[in-house]
Amino acid sequence: MTDRKPKIPRKREKTATELSDGVLQGNRAILAQAITLIESNAPRHFEKAQELLNLIIPSSGKSIRIGITGVPGAGKSTFIEAFGMYLCELGHKVAVLAVDPSSSVTGGSILGDKTRMEQLSRHPHAYVRPSPSAGTLGGVAKKTRETILLCEAAGYDVIIVETVGVGQSEVAVRSMVDIFLLLALTGAGDELQGMKKGIMELTDLLLINKADGDNEQKALRAKQEFSRILHFLRPATKGWSSKALTCSALYQIGIDTVWNNILEYEKVTKESNVFQERREAQMKDWFYTMIVDRLQTMFFQHSTIKQQLPILESQILSGKLSASLAVNELFEEYERAK
Amino acid sequence: MTDRKPKIPRKREKTATELSDGVLQGNRAILAQAITLIESNAPRHFEKAQELLNLIIPSSGKSIRIGITGVPGAGKSTFIEAFGMYLCELGHKVAVLAVDPSSSVTGGSILGDKTRMEQLSRHPHAYVRPSPSAGTLGGVAKKTRETILLCEAAGYDVIIVETVGVGQSEVAVRSMVDIFLLLALTGAGDELQGMKKGIMELTDLLLINKADGDNEQKALRAKQEFSRILHFLRPATKGWSSKALTCSALYQIGIDTVWNNILEYEKVTKESNVFQERREAQMKDWFYTMIVDRLQTMFFQHSTIKQQLPILESQILSGKLSASLAVNELFEEYERAK
Repeated sequence: MTDRKPKIPRKREKTATELSDGVLQGNRAILAQAITLIESNAPRHFEKAQELLNLIIPSSGKSIRIGITGVPGAGKSTFIEAFGMYLCELGHKVAVLAVDPSSSVTGGSILGDKTRMEQLSRHPHAYVRPSPSAGTLGGVAKKTRETILLCEAAGYDVIIVETVGVGQSEVAVRSMVDIFLLLALTGAGDELQGMKKGIMELTDLLLINKADGDNEQKALRAKQEFSRILHFLRPATKGWSSKALTCSALYQIGIDTVWNNILEYEKVTKESNVFQERREAQMKDWFYTMIVDRLQTMFFQHSTIKQQLPILESQILSGKLSASLAVNELFEEYERAK
Repeated sequence: MTDRKPKIPRKREKTATELSDGVLQGNRAILAQAITLIESNAPRHFEKAQELLNLIIPSSGKSIRIGITGVPGAGKSTFIEAFGMYLCELGHKVAVLAVDPSSSVTGGSILGDKTRMEQLSRHPHAYVRPSPSAGTLGGVAKKTRETILLCEAAGYDVIIVETVGVGQSEVAVRSMVDIFLLLALTGAGDELQGMKKGIMELTDLLLINKADGDNEQKALRAKQEFSRILHFLRPATKGWSSKALTCSALYQIGIDTVWNNILEYEKVTKESNVFQERREAQMKDWFYTMIVDRLQTMFFQHSTIKQQLPILESQILSGKLSASLAVNELFEEYERAK
């Protein structure tokens, strides 16, 4: 009872400038601290996080941002490990982030268990970050966007953003990356039914993984079937015909082809300016999304609105009040209460 | 120059109660006046329109609301005319409305030319209303929603909402109807590419029109191909497998089958409560959409915001300012200016 641990003197918190300097030097430990600051929900961290972001922003943007999703069992971790290692060996610096709004609910994160990408997370040119634990998709997406900027400032030139595809997380990821990859399995017909509605329409490259051994022929047939279906859909990116490819992450077959296709995509979209236009549009959209989120939070968190809303809603549903009139009453109350 | 027309004394405007009484009695002339009031953009009409809506709302809701869209040339008008006449002959009262945000731009409306549905618009049990001429999709959709309520209160038990499919108008129509029909032509492969992204996924019944004469075999093959594709997609409505059917509006073949499928759909979805749940969800969504629209209008129309927004936006795009910080600055300005 008496031999309590002696108090360890707490280290002085780094200033925004110190964090920024460390990030810009590519210091991984400081990058991790900077991301933790960005991810923090504590109001006292907000201002410093903003200061940090403003310092690193001029050094951000110089990467290719790759989104990856896939049906469960398609082997996302194995693929990202093999793909990331391949890129590191080519001399790239690779950061792996995740948008996983479920992690806070289930307690586990898709990337929380770093052993899933054991090799890659130990590579000096790779940085694997577990998913932020903030609850809502909006919150997780905001933090991931800002983490992308930090990683870019730290010199990572390939950013991989993974999602398990809970809720609208693919749409969120698509809105923050340059190219979107879907990892699928053989047996297009059956697989497609397990796929989320609309997911094919976001896809620039569809990778049929596990194309090895006995599975290879099946994978080639799946590739043909997927190609046919992609052909029916409008391309996810203007001027780029979405493609299906086969690969084997386990045996590291076709990983180079995936990367070459990404490079080709980058070349084509940069030449047509579609790449730059999408980045600008993404930045604008994000800005407006944050504004509208804030407006809604201010309104719906207001005590008067919280009290009136369920009353009006039940009057609408029971056919006693028109929705337009309910909106009017709500805003009159809001104006009076302000 | 001197023989100016004598001033015709203007008729006294009807009160909301008079309009409501007329609508509830099924008086078509008064229904038309009531809809015109709802469609008016004049601020002085707003309050009366709200009063009217509140009077008729308890009598609304007792209809099946059918959305229809289709590729250009699929024969929407001919189909709606044949389908509407068939229903009138069965003793139903049919209202045809339109969501066409383009009509104000092009000057013409998809339904403006009533001669397109000459027979139906003259039938005593039918009411064909041209598209409201308000500009934005949001505005048109709001008016159409309220017009549905008025028509229901006037005793119309089948409401058909047509759209040409400009912008997101199919999504808007899907959000106000119980069942959604897509009119297609033969040659699924080619046709599909002309179809709007995502439209198949909203569809409960896909009708291949012009299945007559030499075209019949082709239509049957198209039906098979479309069935296969629908099978790949998640059903638009829980518990209902989206179907492809053939018909010929011109020769009135298969119109009864379309109606029987709609009745079957109504039965299945009412038994599973999916019908009622969707209506409630639609009503709630609409209420929240109107709230958020109003919030945004208040904010973005504010003179301070109008002035600051482009400045901050260009700072973000040139990488001088983080989007989060820009949002903060904007709201600080907003609070100060209020």
